[in-house]
Amino acid sequence: MRIFVDAMGGDNAPKEIVKGCIDAVNEYHVQLTLVGDETQIAQTLSLASYPKQLINILPSYSVINFNDEPVKAIREKKDSSIVIALEAAKKAGADSVVVSAGSTGALLAGGLFKLGRIKGIKRPALGTPIPTKNHITLLLDSGANADCKAEYLQQFAILGSIYYQNIYQQVNPKVALLNIGTETEKGNILTKEAFQLLSKTRAINFIGNIEARDIMNGKADIIVTDGFTGNIVLKQLEGLSNYLLNGLKQAILSSFRGKVGGALIQKDLQSFKHEFSSDEIGGAPFLGVRGGLIKAHGSSKAYAIKNAIKQAIAYMDRDIIAKIDNTINTNTDSIKF
Amino acid sequence: MRIFVDAMGGDNAPKEIVKGCIDAVNEYHVQLTLVGDETQIAQTLSLASYPKQLINILPSYSVINFNDEPVKAIREKKDSSIVIALEAAKKAGADSVVVSAGSTGALLAGGLFKLGRIKGIKRPALGTPIPTKNHITLLLDSGANADCKAEYLQQFAILGSIYYQNIYQQVNPKVALLNIGTETEKGNILTKEAFQLLSKTRAINFIGNIEARDIMNGKADIIVTDGFTGNIVLKQLEGLSNYLLNGLKQAILSSFRGKVGGALIQKDLQSFKHEFSSDEIGGAPFLGVRGGLIKAHGSSKAYAIKNAIKQAIAYMDRDIIAKIDNTINTNTDSIKF
Repeated sequence: MRIFVDAMGGDNAPKEIVKGCIDAVNEYHVQLTLVGDETQIAQTLSLASYPKQLINILPSYSVINFNDEPVKAIREKKDSSIVIALEAAKKAGADSVVVSAGSTGALLAGGLFKLGRIKGIKRPALGTPIPTKNHITLLLDSGANADCKAEYLQQFAILGSIYYQNIYQQVNPKVALLNIGTETEKGNILTKEAFQLLSKTRAINFIGNIEARDIMNGKADIIVTDGFTGNIVLKQLEGLSNYLLNGLKQAILSSFRGKVGGALIQKDLQSFKHEFSSDEIGGAPFLGVRGGLIKAHGSSKAYAIKNAIKQAIAYMDRDIIAKIDNTINTNTDSIKF
Repeated sequence: MRIFVDAMGGDNAPKEIVKGCIDAVNEYHVQLTLVGDETQIAQTLSLASYPKQLINILPSYSVINFNDEPVKAIREKKDSSIVIALEAAKKAGADSVVVSAGSTGALLAGGLFKLGRIKGIKRPALGTPIPTKNHITLLLDSGANADCKAEYLQQFAILGSIYYQNIYQQVNPKVALLNIGTETEKGNILTKEAFQLLSKTRAINFIGNIEARDIMNGKADIIVTDGFTGNIVLKQLEGLSNYLLNGLKQAILSSFRGKVGGALIQKDLQSFKHEFSSDEIGGAPFLGVRGGLIKAHGSSKAYAIKNAIKQAIAYMDRDIIAKIDNTINTNTDSIKF
């Protein structure tokens, strides 16, 4: 197993990324390759205590930014941390994973170009784990494919089921289709067709349509949708949560009485926010590419990076790639993973 | 002007609907026709003080429920409050409005079948006013058309602009396209094409793409999208707000300290929730049908119904139907409304 961490990606790179790696090797005793600016990485490493032989550095000389055009950046910034990490992973074989908090677009484009698809996969999908009510719900595709066909959604359901069952150790995870009504006949052309296909796919545990108002109730383990809708849902989740929590804070701080009350609820509020935080649950896997690829949140600090690395270890330990390969290239009507 | 109110639609019908009507005639001195169960309506009316000549009853004998299949219900429940209200409005001419808190699906199907489209309108759209930061943002289509073409979205932008400018008295309202990135080239096939069309439509003030994370910031007056995505956004808004506010409440109530703090912030919390409430801003207009049709929220109480009636009055006073007709059937590249 080889784990490559893009030390230069995300808002807090490289310092927090490197710290997360140090915590990970101390806790999980795995070998990590950090890809990035050698001097900066070495500087943070030199301050820490950890088994030196577990971390090595693969130098890179540029960074792909969030505002770089993804496809162009992958093609042109050949010495960037993302490109060098992906190429090293490709060379190391399917038994390797890349973890990055960098540009999602560049990681998706790079993953597709550099790692390639697992045989039989029509479109790899980005699965984002969402902390829902006492639960984790995997939303896919959450942004890799803006235009989808029903058979892509069928594969997303299989990819998500394999991942969920193996990573979260849940037998027969429940798959729901994101739709504008719960009834069978509801939806647009795509979801109506996908509903029929999913109903016939015996390899998955399809529980029917789910409405957007029920995403947070934790009743589905996997929610399947096209990448356009999935991306809208994810970004609304982010925007609306911030809006509500900030609005609430401002309302409370607007009166003296509120300020006193606010101080008293601070602890409970923090624990609630913590429950709702994505730091706990690691990153989003890009499922269907040949090799592991975990996208950590751009705002990840050390703790979130450590969790993403934990997830990368599980990804390899539980042989997700081989299981996807076997399932997709066997009769999907009968197989169990 | 004729205003027909479906007295039987919604969770709190008929009592709260009738009360809202009483408040509306007392405040706005308009003539209302209440459609519904004569005995029940008369009972609530008999307890109130208002100018008796301003309210009359048009009897209906059944109700279309939220779980009735909309198209079938419109066809078969001919003596329902929705069908009778729509037919009466049709007969009364384009200078009439129907207000209902009943089944959205039935109102959309009924509006289309009974009232028909304004000449030149490809697809009428449901516009939902969302309370955003110090602002109201109109989201359309929020559920009438699950599958859309780019030219429908172009018309939605025009419909929304006419409505917004006239109802909220804002010159040159800003139109944004809901998309998965702010850059011009981002999106799925539909939004890429719609972006081009909207950019060329000189009748509107197109400000470009907006991401779902920015919906609540109030920077757009009108957000245009297909009815599938719009419905997902609306329902997520509802579900996530409830989830967050309830989760927060539970977290606070879980400790003694929190309970005391919670009591102190109660007032500020209420004022924040009030700001965020859709009761203030009336209902959702079904734009493009021949006649006014305002869908109030299913949970509407008297206050929300009164506001929906206020909106219906403005709809007619400001001649929205004629303005849509003129704009759509003239060169949309040069017209100002």
